[in-house]
Amino acid sequence: MVEVTRSTALGVVGASELFQFLRDGAPRTRSALAQATGLARSTIAARVDELMELGLVTPVADAVSTGGRPPSQFALNPAARVVLAADFGASHASLAVTDLAGTVLAERSEALDIADGPVRVLGWLVETGRALMAEIGRDRTDLAAIGIGVPGPVEHATGRPVNPPIMPGWDRFDVPGWVQQHLEVPVLVDNDVNIMALGERQVAWPRTDHLMFVKVATGIGSGIVSGGALQRGAQGIAGDIGHVQVARGAEAACHCGNRGCLEALASGPAIARALRERGLDAVTGRDVVDLVKRGDLTAVQAVRQAGRDIGEVLTACVSLVNPSVIVIGGSMAQAGEQLIAGIREIVYTRSMPLATAHLQVVQSAAPENAGVLGASMLAIQHVLSPEGVDALAAR
Amino acid sequence: MVEVTRSTALGVVGASELFQFLRDGAPRTRSALAQATGLARSTIAARVDELMELGLVTPVADAVSTGGRPPSQFALNPAARVVLAADFGASHASLAVTDLAGTVLAERSEALDIADGPVRVLGWLVETGRALMAEIGRDRTDLAAIGIGVPGPVEHATGRPVNPPIMPGWDRFDVPGWVQQHLEVPVLVDNDVNIMALGERQVAWPRTDHLMFVKVATGIGSGIVSGGALQRGAQGIAGDIGHVQVARGAEAACHCGNRGCLEALASGPAIARALRERGLDAVTGRDVVDLVKRGDLTAVQAVRQAGRDIGEVLTACVSLVNPSVIVIGGSMAQAGEQLIAGIREIVYTRSMPLATAHLQVVQSAAPENAGVLGASMLAIQHVLSPEGVDALAAR
Repeated sequence: MVEVTRSTALGVVGASELFQFLRDGAPRTRSALAQATGLARSTIAARVDELMELGLVTPVADAVSTGGRPPSQFALNPAARVVLAADFGASHASLAVTDLAGTVLAERSEALDIADGPVRVLGWLVETGRALMAEIGRDRTDLAAIGIGVPGPVEHATGRPVNPPIMPGWDRFDVPGWVQQHLEVPVLVDNDVNIMALGERQVAWPRTDHLMFVKVATGIGSGIVSGGALQRGAQGIAGDIGHVQVARGAEAACHCGNRGCLEALASGPAIARALRERGLDAVTGRDVVDLVKRGDLTAVQAVRQAGRDIGEVLTACVSLVNPSVIVIGGSMAQAGEQLIAGIREIVYTRSMPLATAHLQVVQSAAPENAGVLGASMLAIQHVLSPEGVDALAAR
Repeated sequence: MVEVTRSTALGVVGASELFQFLRDGAPRTRSALAQATGLARSTIAARVDELMELGLVTPVADAVSTGGRPPSQFALNPAARVVLAADFGASHASLAVTDLAGTVLAERSEALDIADGPVRVLGWLVETGRALMAEIGRDRTDLAAIGIGVPGPVEHATGRPVNPPIMPGWDRFDVPGWVQQHLEVPVLVDNDVNIMALGERQVAWPRTDHLMFVKVATGIGSGIVSGGALQRGAQGIAGDIGHVQVARGAEAACHCGNRGCLEALASGPAIARALRERGLDAVTGRDVVDLVKRGDLTAVQAVRQAGRDIGEVLTACVSLVNPSVIVIGGSMAQAGEQLIAGIREIVYTRSMPLATAHLQVVQSAAPENAGVLGASMLAIQHVLSPEGVDALAAR
């Protein structure tokens, strides 16, 4: 197992910082950008020149005349290129073409089983990507990069899934290499919850540097943005909280082989199982959500208790990561305020006051497409990075 | 509470990356540095020119002639400037003058109570710093920056302690402002465990980007290096694991007002209290360490159990942060292998295999001076950052 290389990590960090300031589309001067990013003026000037040559940023008429020579302003040109953004779940696939501001230009979702293996799934991506590009009349040369989220751990530096439990056939598969045989652009791959954290931040928390996105669905996982950067950890599995043990769960057997894991107590199927034991008709998380929406008291109480279990683990996360926002997403978040109420009950009771004084625990603002938007962000960050700009210039 | 500004965060990240490659003193070419850091060549060239003008890096004769014009190599010049590095604990103070490679040139340690307040403690720093500089014959103009670690949460962007529980009189005190009235150089302040993580990495794990340093002493806390950068969190309290609840601890009252906190079970004083209840003569963590070293079986078992309690919390940390190294330091680490054995027992049993396959849990390699070395790193990173270089050039 190779750690993410330093050069890659830095490239992404630096790029994401400049990108943060460009992506809102507001016109800025070079010196404003230098001040905002802390990068040297010479660095900013060189980067902006490169971006302009490629048409990625364009000069903008100054809004206010300063009397003397007006400062030269510029802004991101979102239409200059497009990216493909794919979000693969256990049994669904979503693919979008977005511009460089992350705006979706065309999108398709389908039932697709990740267990069908990489050739079938990535073949769908290539084929559907070409069709979507054609639909909106964009040429293959307009495509700048592809971002892909998959439901398992990924070695981000190489784009290879590593021991993914629900992705048979994908272990160490060279995802970028395969896709590039058909579409010759940079391909970025990451865990689905990580890209949801990026997407949620893009949509709802663009100025927040410390955010944790928790997905509660068939499994439970989280993506952590800390210090403005997505944290992947040494093996690309940072945020994998589904198998942390919960006090209440001593007897619950988990599919991982351990007992008492959070996922064995608070995931959609785990809640459904608990409801079945109490005589209710529930098999999937979807059934649980339906029961809650119908006001079934047993289901409401079970979801609230699942929230408390998740809150128990998140209390440790709050101490360790010290986020300012925790976003709850995934299909079980559709059970409404009950899940979040249980989480808040424990997080706000058990954490240190300094850690929670400014902490918000909220529902996802992009429950349907955080994954696609995050995959788009992953791709765009790369396109606007020094590495990405070099690659575009060389084409 | 203001979050660490993006510009500051980026300045530190970028600087630390270039610094990583310079600090080993090995000669390198500009293009080798560009390749290693992922920064644009123009950026590297500009940075190196600035550093050379200030004497911080110097040209080095090429070791191997390449036949044609040899590439121009250069290396860090550690003697060009010095920094002051201070590590303040609850009741001790250490201060060192180091060169730009972090080599200690002069050092002093004293019993000093942090509760005496900032004017008394920082006054000691200024006075002792001047004396140490004089001792080694370095001029005031040689001093480039000051790094300070304190035993409490710090808003890193401003250098102000925030609600520090054991530092009366320090809340929101402008540490850099006060010190700069006497020594006009940049002053960087951080939590003591954070700087220990930096120091430990410098000494023992220079190529590790995902490291967690756990201090077990009168209190319990941790410093997290993730993706190559120290993670501070939204309020500067990331890594504050002492008040995470432990299953076994339901009845243990903690000084924070909650029950069952890790610190109420596994800190030095907590173990001593447990031993007193069993008739042994122990008041401090020091007494516990002495008993273990004398082979007292009850003390050995108590320390091992404390290790298991710490391991329980670290299991969540392993899932969340996915480090490749966990370093155990602080005075209780001197109890030897018993503490670590307890930690390993739980971490390796309860964590997911993928997270522990490449995880090392080790004792601190710099138990005595990780704090001072980390404070030195904090200062040197700033000196070599674009911001720091600009400040030096303007003097």
